[in-house]
Amino acid sequence: MSTLVGGMMPHGHHHHNHHPGGGQQCAGDSLPPRFPYGRPDFLELTPELLQYSTEHASRPVLTLKRGSRLPWKTGYAEVINAGKSMLNEDQASCEKLFVKKPSGKHRNSTLLEDNGVSQVQDGTGIPMHFWGVFDGHAGSGAAIVASKLMHRLIRDRLGEICHLLENPNSAPPICLAKNGNPYQVDAKKGPSQESEDPDAVCDSTLRFHMEKTVSLESLVMGVIETAFKQMDDLIEKEKASYAISGGCCALAAIHLMGKLYVANAGDSRAIIIRNNEIIPMTNEFTPESERQRLQYLGFLRPELLGNEFTHIEFPRRIQHNELGKKMLYRDHTMTGWAYKTIVEDDLKFPLIYGEGKKARVMATIGVTRGLGDHELKVYNSNIYIKPFLSCVPQVKVYNLDENKHGPNDVLVMGTDGLWDVTTDREVADAVSAYLSCCDPSDPMRYSLAAQDVLMRSRGVLKERGWRLPNERLGSGDDITVFVVPEHGCP
Amino acid sequence: MSTLVGGMMPHGHHHHNHHPGGGQQCAGDSLPPRFPYGRPDFLELTPELLQYSTEHASRPVLTLKRGSRLPWKTGYAEVINAGKSMLNEDQASCEKLFVKKPSGKHRNSTLLEDNGVSQVQDGTGIPMHFWGVFDGHAGSGAAIVASKLMHRLIRDRLGEICHLLENPNSAPPICLAKNGNPYQVDAKKGPSQESEDPDAVCDSTLRFHMEKTVSLESLVMGVIETAFKQMDDLIEKEKASYAISGGCCALAAIHLMGKLYVANAGDSRAIIIRNNEIIPMTNEFTPESERQRLQYLGFLRPELLGNEFTHIEFPRRIQHNELGKKMLYRDHTMTGWAYKTIVEDDLKFPLIYGEGKKARVMATIGVTRGLGDHELKVYNSNIYIKPFLSCVPQVKVYNLDENKHGPNDVLVMGTDGLWDVTTDREVADAVSAYLSCCDPSDPMRYSLAAQDVLMRSRGVLKERGWRLPNERLGSGDDITVFVVPEHGCP
Repeated sequence: MSTLVGGMMPHGHHHHNHHPGGGQQCAGDSLPPRFPYGRPDFLELTPELLQYSTEHASRPVLTLKRGSRLPWKTGYAEVINAGKSMLNEDQASCEKLFVKKPSGKHRNSTLLEDNGVSQVQDGTGIPMHFWGVFDGHAGSGAAIVASKLMHRLIRDRLGEICHLLENPNSAPPICLAKNGNPYQVDAKKGPSQESEDPDAVCDSTLRFHMEKTVSLESLVMGVIETAFKQMDDLIEKEKASYAISGGCCALAAIHLMGKLYVANAGDSRAIIIRNNEIIPMTNEFTPESERQRLQYLGFLRPELLGNEFTHIEFPRRIQHNELGKKMLYRDHTMTGWAYKTIVEDDLKFPLIYGEGKKARVMATIGVTRGLGDHELKVYNSNIYIKPFLSCVPQVKVYNLDENKHGPNDVLVMGTDGLWDVTTDREVADAVSAYLSCCDPSDPMRYSLAAQDVLMRSRGVLKERGWRLPNERLGSGDDITVFVVPEHGCP
Repeated sequence: MSTLVGGMMPHGHHHHNHHPGGGQQCAGDSLPPRFPYGRPDFLELTPELLQYSTEHASRPVLTLKRGSRLPWKTGYAEVINAGKSMLNEDQASCEKLFVKKPSGKHRNSTLLEDNGVSQVQDGTGIPMHFWGVFDGHAGSGAAIVASKLMHRLIRDRLGEICHLLENPNSAPPICLAKNGNPYQVDAKKGPSQESEDPDAVCDSTLRFHMEKTVSLESLVMGVIETAFKQMDDLIEKEKASYAISGGCCALAAIHLMGKLYVANAGDSRAIIIRNNEIIPMTNEFTPESERQRLQYLGFLRPELLGNEFTHIEFPRRIQHNELGKKMLYRDHTMTGWAYKTIVEDDLKFPLIYGEGKKARVMATIGVTRGLGDHELKVYNSNIYIKPFLSCVPQVKVYNLDENKHGPNDVLVMGTDGLWDVTTDREVADAVSAYLSCCDPSDPMRYSLAAQDVLMRSRGVLKERGWRLPNERLGSGDDITVFVVPEHGCP
């Protein structure tokens, strides 16, 4: 993510970039990294190629080797930034897994204890596919950890409701016994106080009271939301033992039982292209889009602003000699603007400041959701940013089974480096045009499409930097793209 | 609003209705009412007719007298509830006003001091039209006060930015001098330190820094948002001197300089019907639609829940013998559901409970935005509801001047009594069908359409209550409808 962390400072408009070199040298200096830096395993990079991939001057585009295969023939391409950080802070993962009941042995184990291998993968269970894109900032540690562990965490959480997934036609029970099993309520006998199982009375005595019906789909959504939170907690916990630098936006697509769940926390983006029409699967979470949530927190918990910031938004900085004048402002309840008389407190730096890609929370960070960042503070202060960040994704569901898809219908997932310079429409047109010219039997066609659309955002190196064909500036950011065909799914 | 206040109680599922008789007998018993009970002035009801309008058995539909005229030939109809409160707790207002600079004499006067007449209305100034619908609960006091004063408050707030409205082609200045005038910056001379006006330096020295541009439209939105807040504050303040019972949802449409601003706080609804297509102008604010906002407040400020309620949502009440079991839940961050192990704290009553029209905040109130309700407490407790209610409306803007309208294109505004039993589509079809059969020169046509659509929701009295033609139950609630033609505007 380009210049995501750093920006205007409270006192005197200085510009500052945290950890300007990127990399992992910042957090817990004496601790080993949780995972060594690298690119996604599926790229099968040799050490030489890994070195080559970091050349900021040439910015080589990496894609799958001919012959190597991702599930569903998924296409992939990535490129490093133009120099803002030493390493590529984006990460990605693509996995096929199987959801099954936790076995007795592993029942109480955690990801941490068993190094992420909490289940035997023997091909039995409910198949699940996972695609993840993680856009790191202020180091690559959090993005790497998330790319290694997120899919396992989600699989394990789904495993806990495996017995419910196996009966997709009955709504999930509201209450489970202590052992996790649903109560056995005998519909014919009706509520019975003589039941052998003392738990059995639970649902039946209450069945005449108000009860909400919860769908299996919203249970899966809840599992994914909870897993993001657990991923974030895990990063915090592991920081006691490992160096895990920075934070990351997380975008994940999960295919389970005919439905595609797209979960987004940050400013990456996913769209479905169907018959050249665009179905947006994400909203972006930025200081501007989450302004009211952040202001509300600052309003209710002013101590989090450390006497340096005000939760009120102003269209520009206020000068001391403007005290007593009237200035446009917005508080946490407002969408429009009004005038207020400037008082001493308004001279503090605004919690949200800047516009578009330059908007920052407390002059520090340009996204408001993601994983990690537990140690991130406002420059030269003891004010933590983390309370204002959310690790909870927005989950949208697309019913893959209920729609027909041709070979050119795809899900495109990309980090903001892709979308900052290329619109949804341009991406959709480019992908559709490319795929319709491409041999339908070429197993590389989706990777070639991913490369093609990535190049449109990176551009080519000219005398005056990376340029697009129309001479606009290309993206100097790390870029990662998945192109996932939708007709190939099982 | 039907059974809006009252509902399931924390301890033992009792049903309770605050102030079951409605009326004003509840708050500040010894104080005089701020305004006497009545129906909107434009109905010109005699005391006999006023008495007749309260007959719950026959529920007469009131509309404009033939010959009396509202601005834009606006149509209107109303009917009392089927017995849930003695009086009709809905109120309405429709006014043409003129926005002008506050005159020196009235500059610092408030609505309270001058009894709402803060400006001389001599036909000069910027014309503004106002339609308001106020759906009261637990008494009619707040709705009456709002229907008498809201439009004046908005007019007066707009008066304060009158000099900006008069220059619609220049963006509002970010900073105003203490006297409210914009700084004079001489664009040709550029920033000058020798300017006679010491304020002049303000905008110019800063013009090379980041500045947001704010549109005049968002300034008007801000004025309306602020005016709702001031209306709410005024009700609270006047309660020291007057009896102002209950609270009310507020829906207001303001026409100013070619644009229609629709501001909604509550569960009333407005739609524009254009060429029989529906443009929704409101979202409803209910315990279900605002669940996450309310839960977030309860999470951050648990003391507001008074040790009686939990901010966590469960699909039904939990019983004491279920401690240690797992139950579905949602917290303030979640859209999906997950299982959690039940602990002692979860046995408290949920902050949000119930579904659809029966959903309640703290077992007490079924809407989450509106005016008044300052004294409303959870039954038999000292827990105030007001901190969870918002008086700030959502404002949507429709550009009337940029669209062409025929004589059957209208804005329909109605309280929830209308929409609970008739869908947007049914209302649009009924109004379109009625108007297209109606003499286009009949000045009563919009009132007749309002009556027609109201009747579809009220139904007719049969042996088993108020019934619609399809035998479904009609609305037993107060119903108020405006039908505002859009081609008649100046």
